[in-house]
Amino acid sequence: MNFEIVTWKDNAVVMIDQRKLPVSEEYVTLHSADQVAEAIRNMTVRGAPAIGVSAAMGIAIAALKSQASRSENLQEELCAVSKTLNETRPTAVNLAWALERMKNFISKKINLSVEELKKEIIQEAILIKEQDIQTNRKMGSYGQEVIDDGDTILTHCNAGALATAGFGTALGVIYAAKEAGKNISVIADETRPVLQGARLSAWELQKNDIPVTVITDNMAASLMAKGLIQKIVVGADRIAANGDTANKIGTYSVAINAKYHNIPFYVAAPFSTIDVQCSSGKDIPIEERNPAEVSELNGKALVPQGVSIKNPAFDVTPADLIKGIITEKGIFKGPFDFRKA
Amino acid sequence: MNFEIVTWKDNAVVMIDQRKLPVSEEYVTLHSADQVAEAIRNMTVRGAPAIGVSAAMGIAIAALKSQASRSENLQEELCAVSKTLNETRPTAVNLAWALERMKNFISKKINLSVEELKKEIIQEAILIKEQDIQTNRKMGSYGQEVIDDGDTILTHCNAGALATAGFGTALGVIYAAKEAGKNISVIADETRPVLQGARLSAWELQKNDIPVTVITDNMAASLMAKGLIQKIVVGADRIAANGDTANKIGTYSVAINAKYHNIPFYVAAPFSTIDVQCSSGKDIPIEERNPAEVSELNGKALVPQGVSIKNPAFDVTPADLIKGIITEKGIFKGPFDFRKA
Repeated sequence: MNFEIVTWKDNAVVMIDQRKLPVSEEYVTLHSADQVAEAIRNMTVRGAPAIGVSAAMGIAIAALKSQASRSENLQEELCAVSKTLNETRPTAVNLAWALERMKNFISKKINLSVEELKKEIIQEAILIKEQDIQTNRKMGSYGQEVIDDGDTILTHCNAGALATAGFGTALGVIYAAKEAGKNISVIADETRPVLQGARLSAWELQKNDIPVTVITDNMAASLMAKGLIQKIVVGADRIAANGDTANKIGTYSVAINAKYHNIPFYVAAPFSTIDVQCSSGKDIPIEERNPAEVSELNGKALVPQGVSIKNPAFDVTPADLIKGIITEKGIFKGPFDFRKA
Repeated sequence: MNFEIVTWKDNAVVMIDQRKLPVSEEYVTLHSADQVAEAIRNMTVRGAPAIGVSAAMGIAIAALKSQASRSENLQEELCAVSKTLNETRPTAVNLAWALERMKNFISKKINLSVEELKKEIIQEAILIKEQDIQTNRKMGSYGQEVIDDGDTILTHCNAGALATAGFGTALGVIYAAKEAGKNISVIADETRPVLQGARLSAWELQKNDIPVTVITDNMAASLMAKGLIQKIVVGADRIAANGDTANKIGTYSVAINAKYHNIPFYVAAPFSTIDVQCSSGKDIPIEERNPAEVSELNGKALVPQGVSIKNPAFDVTPADLIKGIITEKGIFKGPFDFRKA
């Protein structure tokens, strides 16, 4: 990729500002965990794996800035920071996963001196990032096998490099298929209200020379009926033990349309997205975001004042609509039971 | 209704500018058929029945302004005007229907003096408008019977007063249900790319004191899964003899989602929308509009430059997804055969 999503650079966290894409490619430099928390909340960074990496880096920056003289005090401070970061967004489980991993890591290293511990925490956050890229690459190499030469693949939202540490889950499968020499093209749902498909997927696919066509979300069924879509690959924000998958609002409708047209519908996500604590989709909390995301665009009203608005950020696709879940450990097929995986 | 859609006033055609809603309620005054044609093309006026009424008024304004000294010359001139108007938009058949009605009317009255003929033409255009409102009222009285007290009804695009001469087809059913004392509320799909649901349906429902909630198009399935939608009623731009229905892009997806959730899906449209020349949906021409409607909003880019875009304005819902077609002659149920109706 010829751009960076989240990096540790000169003792700070540097992120591409995804709210500004595709109009401009700008980077923000964050010097505190509070700034990282706000960047997650306001969607400067978004995408379940990218949020996980960012949260780990939030812990690292808090460690670096800490005045604690003893490792136990540092641990205590970071525990509070972890709580703040964990409360930024409720649906993506990778956030809690990364924070839990940092917490366990700190517990194990608690006998180090405070300065040594700080260094190790920073290294661990960087490791989470590097492993995310490796995980995506593995997922891509498994996933690309379901893509045929000549396929046009529909994707929803952005589960690409921008949603991860740098390669992508759903788009990682597409990049891997291209690397394997397959001639493919992509249809990107624009993905209202925040337009991650139009703004982000189109941007990174174009940067990677993959032919991409943007449509409004409501056009997908009509293209399926015309035989213009051969596969569907999307990401996930949380996968329940039974395979029910929470992903960006609109994914469920794509899955129903895919079923109606007999088009295989795949989910691509790392194991850190699977939450075996949730036995089914009913247990997954769905974030309701600010109505202004729906009612306004670029400061102009799209809806009359006083009209009620709903803005759930995610929906749940039941497992039986999913042909396969592509992970770094291989492709799983239904009936799913990730408690055993 | 406390607003006007298309009216004949002081020897001119006055239209509410639907591109400006809901931000401002502005009216434009048109003094030539070319201006009317442009208003249809650029969607100052939109909605199949409203386009039909506007085209008839376009013929009337051309008649009024004509310098023809003989009725036959006037007829010839208006034939050319009719051709221009007919080419403004390809999908809605009400346009061709209204122009054909005007043409036949002129043929029958060709023995009148040119001045008398002009007066009659104007009266006929006004009659088409009045009959459209009566037709909608009849459709509403039939259609409201499928609505139960307490229902929440999803609608797509705007098939309301603004899409007709003044009462509405799909929203006419809703207004009639309210007049019948039923306590109802509406979910309006925002309807990308032109946002007729968010801007127009929400605006007129609010003006008529009907509780309305706007959602992005991709949220509908998730609300259906939660049991929040009891009925679906949409309009139509053209209905084939077998019941296949062309309507605003996204309608097909709503119908598939409705089927999956066992929610009754109704189409409301006047007989002038039925085109028995089309034996099935395959015969209906689908307008492809300017990609800028998808890629820009309020002058700001939503999609990276150079990315390909599709913008079909309509899609076709196959008859077997339609529970009933509500017309001024009653509710038709499948299998449909309008050649016999």
